[in-house]
Amino acid sequence: MYLILVYDIEVARVAKMLKLCRRYLNWIQNSVFEGELSDVKLKELLHQAKTIMDPERDSIIVFQTRQEKWLDKTVIGKEKNELDNVI
Amino acid sequence: MYLILVYDIEVARVAKMLKLCRRYLNWIQNSVFEGELSDVKLKELLHQAKTIMDPERDSIIVFQTRQEKWLDKTVIGKEKNELDNVI
Repeated sequence: MYLILVYDIEVARVAKMLKLCRRYLNWIQNSVFEGELSDVKLKELLHQAKTIMDPERDSIIVFQTRQEKWLDKTVIGKEKNELDNVI
Repeated sequence: MYLILVYDIEVARVAKMLKLCRRYLNWIQNSVFEGELSDVKLKELLHQAKTIMDPERDSIIVFQTRQEKWLDKTVIGKEKNELDNVI
């Protein structure tokens, strides 16, 4: 399953969430990740995300598609650079 | 065309970009929009976005799919509320 994950997490919790998401997905923008993940791995990720987030204040949206080719991606402006990926 | 637009725009320019994107799409999270848009309207939106953004610092990613049903969406945590939509 190819998926896009976007989060809106308050600053106190964002570093933890970023670290978690990067263990499963590719970080492509400030709060946006993409990648191929099995249903089991996605459940695992979301289970752990729920232990970090405050459901009254934070949110995660996951868009899933069975085939990556069904989604076209266009990037305008700055591409995420190597430095970002190292942080 | 159904699409998801995510942006990473510096604070000095974000209000303008938000206003622009909301003219074309539904605002579903902090920096995430979705909606149905023709190719012409998407070009128009991106053309205007480029006049607002700094391409060295800001970025926009657009994911497009021909059919909305090819994408499943899951929201975890806080759903965007009415107050947010009024701002």
